[in-house]
Amino acid sequence: MTEKFFSERNLKFLLYEVLDTESLTRLPVFSQHNRKMFDMVIDAGIRLAKELFKPCLEEMDKQLPELKDGRVRVHPWVGRILKEAGDGGWIGLRFPEAEGGEQLPNTIGSACDFIFTAANYSASVYSHLTSGAAHLILSFGSRSLIDAYVPNMLSGRWQGTMALTEPQAGSSLSDITTTAIPADDGDYTIRGQKIFISAGDHDGAENVVHLMLARIEGAPAGTKGISLFVVPRLRPDDSGKSVSNDITVTQVYHKLGYRGAPITELSIGEKEDCRGYLVGEAHKGLKYMFQMMNEARVGVGVGAAGIASAAYYAALDYAGSRTQGRPITSKNPAKPQIPIIEHADVKRMLLFQRAVVEGSLALLLQCSLYSDYIHAEAGEEKEAANLMLEILTPVAKTYPSEMGILSTSQSIQCLGGYGYCEDFPVEQYFRDARIHPIHEGTTGIQGMDLLGRKVIMADGKAFQLYLKTIRETVREASEGPEFLKAYADQLETALTSLETVTFNLIGVAQSKGPAAYLADATLYLEFFGIMTVAWQWLKQGIIAEKALQSAKSKREKNFYQGKIYTFKYFFEYELPKAEGLGRRLSSTDNLTLEMESVFFND
Amino acid sequence: MTEKFFSERNLKFLLYEVLDTESLTRLPVFSQHNRKMFDMVIDAGIRLAKELFKPCLEEMDKQLPELKDGRVRVHPWVGRILKEAGDGGWIGLRFPEAEGGEQLPNTIGSACDFIFTAANYSASVYSHLTSGAAHLILSFGSRSLIDAYVPNMLSGRWQGTMALTEPQAGSSLSDITTTAIPADDGDYTIRGQKIFISAGDHDGAENVVHLMLARIEGAPAGTKGISLFVVPRLRPDDSGKSVSNDITVTQVYHKLGYRGAPITELSIGEKEDCRGYLVGEAHKGLKYMFQMMNEARVGVGVGAAGIASAAYYAALDYAGSRTQGRPITSKNPAKPQIPIIEHADVKRMLLFQRAVVEGSLALLLQCSLYSDYIHAEAGEEKEAANLMLEILTPVAKTYPSEMGILSTSQSIQCLGGYGYCEDFPVEQYFRDARIHPIHEGTTGIQGMDLLGRKVIMADGKAFQLYLKTIRETVREASEGPEFLKAYADQLETALTSLETVTFNLIGVAQSKGPAAYLADATLYLEFFGIMTVAWQWLKQGIIAEKALQSAKSKREKNFYQGKIYTFKYFFEYELPKAEGLGRRLSSTDNLTLEMESVFFND
Repeated sequence: MTEKFFSERNLKFLLYEVLDTESLTRLPVFSQHNRKMFDMVIDAGIRLAKELFKPCLEEMDKQLPELKDGRVRVHPWVGRILKEAGDGGWIGLRFPEAEGGEQLPNTIGSACDFIFTAANYSASVYSHLTSGAAHLILSFGSRSLIDAYVPNMLSGRWQGTMALTEPQAGSSLSDITTTAIPADDGDYTIRGQKIFISAGDHDGAENVVHLMLARIEGAPAGTKGISLFVVPRLRPDDSGKSVSNDITVTQVYHKLGYRGAPITELSIGEKEDCRGYLVGEAHKGLKYMFQMMNEARVGVGVGAAGIASAAYYAALDYAGSRTQGRPITSKNPAKPQIPIIEHADVKRMLLFQRAVVEGSLALLLQCSLYSDYIHAEAGEEKEAANLMLEILTPVAKTYPSEMGILSTSQSIQCLGGYGYCEDFPVEQYFRDARIHPIHEGTTGIQGMDLLGRKVIMADGKAFQLYLKTIRETVREASEGPEFLKAYADQLETALTSLETVTFNLIGVAQSKGPAAYLADATLYLEFFGIMTVAWQWLKQGIIAEKALQSAKSKREKNFYQGKIYTFKYFFEYELPKAEGLGRRLSSTDNLTLEMESVFFND
Repeated sequence: MTEKFFSERNLKFLLYEVLDTESLTRLPVFSQHNRKMFDMVIDAGIRLAKELFKPCLEEMDKQLPELKDGRVRVHPWVGRILKEAGDGGWIGLRFPEAEGGEQLPNTIGSACDFIFTAANYSASVYSHLTSGAAHLILSFGSRSLIDAYVPNMLSGRWQGTMALTEPQAGSSLSDITTTAIPADDGDYTIRGQKIFISAGDHDGAENVVHLMLARIEGAPAGTKGISLFVVPRLRPDDSGKSVSNDITVTQVYHKLGYRGAPITELSIGEKEDCRGYLVGEAHKGLKYMFQMMNEARVGVGVGAAGIASAAYYAALDYAGSRTQGRPITSKNPAKPQIPIIEHADVKRMLLFQRAVVEGSLALLLQCSLYSDYIHAEAGEEKEAANLMLEILTPVAKTYPSEMGILSTSQSIQCLGGYGYCEDFPVEQYFRDARIHPIHEGTTGIQGMDLLGRKVIMADGKAFQLYLKTIRETVREASEGPEFLKAYADQLETALTSLETVTFNLIGVAQSKGPAAYLADATLYLEFFGIMTVAWQWLKQGIIAEKALQSAKSKREKNFYQGKIYTFKYFFEYELPKAEGLGRRLSSTDNLTLEMESVFFND
C-alpha cells in the first residue's frame, strides 16, 4: 500500500512558484524568517505526519472513543500527538513570539495543516482546535485570562474546543439558550447543554478549555445577546488546586467517519457549580466567535482537501500497479493485461481527483496568504486582502468539502470492488470526507453567507475586487501561447456569465425580496466556486507553462506537463459545469418557494 | 423515526397511470392475472418488507457475516427470509407456472424488488440472486439439471450465486482462468479461485449453487472459450447423499456498506474434487451469463433507487419535524422556529432526492415492461422492445447508481450533524448505496457498453428508436398547456444536442479510431442518462397535469401537485446539467489519451 498521501513537489510549487510566499519575509512581522526556515518547518511537519499521524490512521478509525466512568477514552496516541504538537511549536505556529509562538505566516501553517489532515484527519483536529481556541482568548480575552489559559494550551497540555451548537440551535445560533448568571466575584455560573462538541473531552489532555457561547441572564434575544466564555473542565479552587467545573459528558456520538475524534454532548452546570469566564465584552460573543469560525472554515477546506489528497494518492498507486484489461485497439487476450492507469477513463478519474485536490489547495493557500496580508499589512493592502478573504471564505470552505465527497468517491471507483473493502484505505477517506459540508456551517449556510452577505457587502466592493483580481490573471494568460489564450477567453466568458447572473439576482432581490434572491444560494455558491477554482488553475497553468520551457530534468518536465494537463482538464471538464448552473440561476420560477410542504405527502 | 421507506401511491401511479401495466394481462402469457391480483402481490410484498426486511436493517449492518469453521455465519433472520421468499412464491415470481412459478410480469416483480431493497438492501439480495441463478439454469440447462436444482432454489432451500470475478479478472472477463477438466462421467472437475461472490456461502441455506464461469481445458483464449457451469457447494454422491464439493470459503470481505450480505472469496477444487455441470453448450458461457447479467444490471438500478428512496423518506420525515431557523423575511428571534422543510434550500434538496428516486423508478419499471413485451410479444413489438431494453440497460443500471450516491448524500445533508451519526439511518444508506456503481459492471464498463455497443448496434436502429420514442412523448407534451410545451421544447433541444454529439463522436470513431471515440464514454452515459430520465419525467408530468384537473380529494391534488413540482424541478435543475456535458463531449482534445501516466508522478 502507498505511503504517499500528498505531493511535496506540488505544495512547494504552490507556495513558491505560484504564490511567492517567500515575499512575506519582507514584511516586518515575518522578517525573522526566510525560505529556508519555511522549508525546515514543512520538513518537520512531514516527519511528524509520517511518524505520528499516518501510522495510527486505521487504528483510530477502528478503536472508537468511548465514554467510561464519565471520561472519554481515546486512542493512546492522542495524548502523545497533542504533546508533540505542543513541544514542537505546532499549536503556537502562528502565534506572536512574545506569546510563546513561532510567529510564522498562516500560509505556512495551512501548508502544514494540509500535510497533517492528509495523514490523519482525526488526529489533526486536537491541536488544530486548541490553536483556534487559544487564538480567540489571545485576541479578545483579558491579560489574566490569557496568562491562565494560553500557555497551557500552546504546550498541548490542555485541549481547546469551540462550544456553540445546542440541540435546538444548530445552524440557528440566535436560539442558543445556555445561560450565564453573574456571580458575586465577577465571574459567571453557566448552565445549559451543548451537542456535537469536537474533542469535548478526552483522556489525552490534562484539561479541556471550552470557548463557549452563552446568554447572560437578561440579555437581548437573538444573536445580539450572545456572549463568549472560557469554561474549563477543571477550574482552580481558591487554593489553586484543580477541581471539577461541573461539566458532564452525556454522550459520545457514533459517526460515519472522522471516528478518531470524539464528538461529544455536554451537560453544563447540572449541580449549578460551573464557572465561566467572560471573554471580552458582554453580548459580543458571536462577533468574537466569528473570527475563529472564519479561520475554522478555511481549516475545514484544508481538511477536506487533505483527505481527498490521501485518497487520490491511494487511487493513483493502485491504478499504476493493478493490471486489468487491454488497450481498446489491441484486445488480443494472449497479450498481457495493462495497468489500469493506461485506460482513458481511469486517467479521467485520476485527473478529476488531482484537479480537485490541487485546485482546492491553491485556493486555500491563497486565502491563507490574504490572511497574512491582513495581519502584516496596513491601509489599502490590508483592506483589499480583507475583502478578498471575506468573499473567498465560503468558497474555500465549500468547494473542497463538496468536491471532496465526489473526489474520494472516484478514488473508490478507481479501485473497483477493492475500493469498497476495508482492506484499502479509500473507503475510510470517503467516510471521513462526508463531515465537511456539515460542520462549521453547512453548505446551505455558506451559500447564504456568500450571496446574502459577501457579494453585496461594502456596496459590492468585495465582488468587484474579486472580478478585477481574476481578470488580471485572465489578462496575463491572454499574453501567453494560444492554448492559454483560449482558456483565458473561456474564463472571461464564465466571469461575464457570473456578472450577469449576479446582476439579475440583485434585480430579483429588489423586485421579489430576499427569499427569492436567496432560494438558490447554494447553487450560486457552486457556480461561484467553479469560477474561483478555474482562476486558481489558470494561475497554475500560466506558471507551469513558463516553467516547462526552462525545466531541465525529465522529472521536472513530467511534473509541469502533469500540471498543464490537470489545468486543461479543469477547463475542459469542470468549468463547463458552470453553464448549466448559470442557466438554472437565470431562471425566475421560484420553484422551491412555491413548492408546499404538503406536496411532499404520499 | 419514520417507518416509511417508499411511496405506495407513487408506485401505483407509475404502474397504472403512467405505464398501464394492467394491459399486460391481455397478453396470453399473463392472461391468468388481473389488476387485483397485481395489487395483492404488491400488498403481500409490502407486508413482507415491513415484517421481515425492515426490522433487521440496522442489526444486519452491525452483526457482520463471519467466517467460522469454514462456514459463513449470517444474521439468524437470513434463513427465515430466504424460506419466506420461497414459501411466498417470491423467488419464482417471474417463472412459468409449469416450473412452479407465479408467471407474473417482470414489471410487478421489479415493483416488489423495489419495495424489498428499500426496506433492506442486504436482505433482498439472497432471494434475488437465487432467482437469477435459477432462471439461468431454466433458460439454458438440461432438463435433468433443471429438475435437480431449480425446485430447491425456488423453494428458498438453496442459495444461488453468480460466480464470475477472479483476482486477475474483474472487469476483464476474457482473463478468467478457472478451469474445467472433462471427467469420465461427462461432467467436469473444476479448479480455480473466485472473488467478490455475493452470498457465496452462508448458514441460512442448505446448499449454495454457483453459476460459475470457467474455461474447459484447451478452450480458445478470451471470451470465446468461457463456459458456464452449475457448481454446488454440496453435491450428491452415488447414493444420492449430499457430500462436500470441495469449495472453500477463504475470506469474507469487510465492506463500507451492504454489510448484511457476505461477499466471499472462494477456492474451488483445492483437493481436485470439485464437480461442475455444464449449462448448455461449451464455450457459450458468457452469452448465457449475459442474460442474467442484463437482468442483474436492471436489478442493481432497482436496488440503488430503493436505497435512495428509503434515505429520502428518512430525510423528509426529519425535515418535517425538526424545527430550526426562521423565514428569511421574518427573523424575529422571539418567534418560534419553523420546520426546516419550510426553507427553500431544504425543499431543493428534498426535490432533488425525490426527482432521482421517482425518475429512476419510472425508468426501471419502463425497462421491466419492455422485458415483459420481449417475453410475451412476437415480431415487431418484440424486436422494438428488445432494442429499447438493450439501449436503456446501461442507463437503468448507472443513473440510479451514480445519482444514488448524491441523493443519499443529500439525505445526510438534510439531517445536518445528526445525519452523520449512527442514531439515524441515512449514514447507512449512504454506505450501502456506494456499491452500485461498482458491481455487475462498473460505470466505466456501462459507458463503453452504451457508446461502444448499444448506440451503434443494428446500424443505429436502437438509437433511432430511442429518439423516436422520446419524441412521441415530446409531441404529446406539446399538445398540453403552456408550461408542458416549454418543457417539451427544452427536451427537444436536448435531444438535438444528443444527436449532434453522437454524430460527431461517430465521426471521431471514423477519423481517430475507437480509443478517441470511447475516451469519454462515461460522460456520454451521464449525458444520455439525464435525457432519458427527463423523458421519464415528461411522461409523468403529462399524466399528472391531466390527473390534477380531475382529482377530487385534497390528498390526491397534493400528490399530483408534488409530482408536477418534482417534474418541473427535473427540467429546471437537472436537465440543464446536460449542457456542460454536451459541451465537453463536443471537444476533440483527446486530453485523457495524451495524458501520460508518468505525468502523474510527483
